[in-house]
Amino acid sequence: MKAAIVGGGVIGGGWAARFLLHGWDVAVSDPNPHIARQVNAILAIAEKYLPALADVPMPPRGRLTFASSLRDAVEGADWVQESVPEQLALKHKVIAEIQAHAPADAILGSSTSGFKPSELQEGAARPGQILVAHPFNPVYLLPLAEVVSGPGGSEQVRERACEILRSIGMEPLVVRHEIDAHIADRFLEAVWREALWLIKDDIATTEEIDNSIRYGFGLRWGQMGLFETYRLGGGEEGMAHFIRQFGPCLTWPWTKLMDVPELDEALVNKIASQSDAQSGKYGIRELEAIRDRNLVGFLRSLKERDWGAGQLLNQHDRRLAKMASVAAQDSVAAPTRLLESTVLPGWIDYNGHMTEYRYVQVFSDSCEALLRRVGMHDEYVAAGHSWYTAETHNQYFDEVGVNEAYYTTVQILMCDAKRLHVFYRMHAADDDRLLASLEAMYLHVHMQSGKVVAADSKATKKLLAMAAAHAGLPKPESAGRFVGQRNLSTTMGQNS
Amino acid sequence: MKAAIVGGGVIGGGWAARFLLHGWDVAVSDPNPHIARQVNAILAIAEKYLPALADVPMPPRGRLTFASSLRDAVEGADWVQESVPEQLALKHKVIAEIQAHAPADAILGSSTSGFKPSELQEGAARPGQILVAHPFNPVYLLPLAEVVSGPGGSEQVRERACEILRSIGMEPLVVRHEIDAHIADRFLEAVWREALWLIKDDIATTEEIDNSIRYGFGLRWGQMGLFETYRLGGGEEGMAHFIRQFGPCLTWPWTKLMDVPELDEALVNKIASQSDAQSGKYGIRELEAIRDRNLVGFLRSLKERDWGAGQLLNQHDRRLAKMASVAAQDSVAAPTRLLESTVLPGWIDYNGHMTEYRYVQVFSDSCEALLRRVGMHDEYVAAGHSWYTAETHNQYFDEVGVNEAYYTTVQILMCDAKRLHVFYRMHAADDDRLLASLEAMYLHVHMQSGKVVAADSKATKKLLAMAAAHAGLPKPESAGRFVGQRNLSTTMGQNS
Repeated sequence: MKAAIVGGGVIGGGWAARFLLHGWDVAVSDPNPHIARQVNAILAIAEKYLPALADVPMPPRGRLTFASSLRDAVEGADWVQESVPEQLALKHKVIAEIQAHAPADAILGSSTSGFKPSELQEGAARPGQILVAHPFNPVYLLPLAEVVSGPGGSEQVRERACEILRSIGMEPLVVRHEIDAHIADRFLEAVWREALWLIKDDIATTEEIDNSIRYGFGLRWGQMGLFETYRLGGGEEGMAHFIRQFGPCLTWPWTKLMDVPELDEALVNKIASQSDAQSGKYGIRELEAIRDRNLVGFLRSLKERDWGAGQLLNQHDRRLAKMASVAAQDSVAAPTRLLESTVLPGWIDYNGHMTEYRYVQVFSDSCEALLRRVGMHDEYVAAGHSWYTAETHNQYFDEVGVNEAYYTTVQILMCDAKRLHVFYRMHAADDDRLLASLEAMYLHVHMQSGKVVAADSKATKKLLAMAAAHAGLPKPESAGRFVGQRNLSTTMGQNS
Repeated sequence: MKAAIVGGGVIGGGWAARFLLHGWDVAVSDPNPHIARQVNAILAIAEKYLPALADVPMPPRGRLTFASSLRDAVEGADWVQESVPEQLALKHKVIAEIQAHAPADAILGSSTSGFKPSELQEGAARPGQILVAHPFNPVYLLPLAEVVSGPGGSEQVRERACEILRSIGMEPLVVRHEIDAHIADRFLEAVWREALWLIKDDIATTEEIDNSIRYGFGLRWGQMGLFETYRLGGGEEGMAHFIRQFGPCLTWPWTKLMDVPELDEALVNKIASQSDAQSGKYGIRELEAIRDRNLVGFLRSLKERDWGAGQLLNQHDRRLAKMASVAAQDSVAAPTRLLESTVLPGWIDYNGHMTEYRYVQVFSDSCEALLRRVGMHDEYVAAGHSWYTAETHNQYFDEVGVNEAYYTTVQILMCDAKRLHVFYRMHAADDDRLLASLEAMYLHVHMQSGKVVAADSKATKKLLAMAAAHAGLPKPESAGRFVGQRNLSTTMGQNS
């Protein structure tokens, strides 16, 4: 499958990364001479964070090219995504050129945050091919895409578009009646407008406004939206009670909401300099990495709870698993790769080193990933059985710094219906050096009685298949070690 | 310290829980005959989730009483929090009664989301005592409190209020110039207003609106606010570029923003029935628990990243640790007792068990305590040397529940200038049963070079003395075990 990205800024680059990391070939068309550097910078960060959301292997990455002409980019494309600046005349010109060269059955999505599809379709050769597919930055992490085909659109095209968006991990929100700014941006504009007044009137700085959001309602909105949150605000008496109690406030004269401040140079500079004071200590790439790590944290915690965007990620894992055919991977005679992530700032102790128990946390998470992979996780546990850790042996080989990328692997040493004996390794992603290992013995437990019992053969089928694939691997040299055994050759002792 | 909660709905109950769980005595005054049941329901859920944010012990919970009169509630109070309905005449009446009976130096905070402090202070006996302390639901989890004292307020009262709010884990956002609806609620009102139009015009349902938030910008706003997010939207060209590019859209005629829909019965019922379709499958307590688990997930992931609200939680942990002062006891003829504490709620996994790596955290903390005791901690490390963990062997013997008290001991097996070989045990405090053990080999490292080097005899003097005292103790039966060794007699295997 081929995607053509027309306009490769922050949004176009984000689309490119999402398609590429889901196995699509991507051709980018943008007259900007720095386009390759900019898109590659976005791709580099997306490659670090998007796969950190998946617990199953992602498809092999597609091929990225920078086309010398729009024609080259869109030829043979299955999806063309337009992300040029928000000027209707420019969009019409670009759409005409796309339609002159792209396949007639390609989907032509526009990233516009404000224009209605009927406006984009005006005068087009094939209006039914065009729809709004409005994403949110960072496009490679946030699942939402507003899809609007408008009265002139094609239902069939829209349905195919939704299917493709889901296949690259996005959630289409179909807007049934086209309006300016679709849905979400109407909220963003309302907040932005109000925020401009607060700054202009010296009520609050950019930092104070940001804190008023992220210490309060922003935390609510990442997992429930406006209405589900307010339903809880009504307490035991519910939604109608809440509206009757708080609705009247809306007609009070908080009049700034009704007016638009003029964005003159003075106001633009005021905002820019407050923003510098607040965030200028971080470079843009650094701030992006902070944002993406935080988003991965939110999304993974929602995934564990199978809620909101995390529920979407669990659905997407099942889709990816089908695409990837996990079984094939697991028959490969190498230690199985489990986690890919980065060392978080909170894992570093006062000495500047990764705290001992955080290594164990990584291996604990690896165990979760292993059990998820062999189908002995959530539902299996809910049905009353689980693997309990009986004993482990840890070795610490090398230091690892904050934000360093790592991956873990597992090698199954022995497995039967009651016992699972495995050896995990944690490696640095950039040079594959061994950071730590953990050898573990798990026992299969009936949770209510606490007794060790045999798992039935159906449940352990995938696990035994993985064990069989690992059977020919050499035994890890430190498996079976005890603490204090001589010849600590591969540990810290090598430095003495 | 005593807090009086005047008006015990969702907000008042949340305040009560936050004060109580930080060791304050709380008296609630509310004419509602169901008040005790309602506040206790909020407290029950707060008790589950607020302590899950802390990694150090919380103070012992304060005493909760339901006062038969407002006078009884506020007498002797250090903080009186008013959370009665949003009617100015009612607030004036309640404030007058509070001031008649509360100490003159108590802080009188109002939870009002709309009124300015000057409006509340009108005609008050002691206007300087009154300020707005506007929290966000759920009050026991979200840190934000907008603090506004207005032109008639007292700076000294405001500063004391901020100090108290921090001591109960909140972050005061001081609003310098009073305006209607302070800061955050202006955004909430703007969004609410727009959302009402979308529903009235059949553009979107409550569920679609919620998804447009929580799959997209809501995730951004939990960790960065509006401006830091948009700074990234500007890409490499930054904030001023972003505003110049997107600012003009604000003056386009997305006119619904300017008008207020009439909240007639038809609209109220439409919203309520859409909300029922979306969320009615959950009872209110169930939905609260879902929300709180999600918020704890977000907050803990931010805490690990030391960012946003998570940074506040780390600061609060340091505050709590000072308050707690965990006493360590000495005994030399037996394994040395190191830590005494309780299992924290955040250590419990989705299965209801203490997570594997939290046991290792307990032993890691025990190592810190051991090194502190023998004078090889902070200053010693600052001077360039430290003991690094080379390898460990862990055994898991028994389950332990949330809030259960435990203690740890250490037995030194071997110690010389370069190596320290120890055996830790973790016991339940109430019946001394063995929960887990960890055998560890530490190497004495020169930190800058990373080399294992000998510590001088003066530094190891106390350690060698402890080792000598332990020399006669029997060797722990599982010291020297390797993973998978036969006769797992004392482990989970005993249950088989």
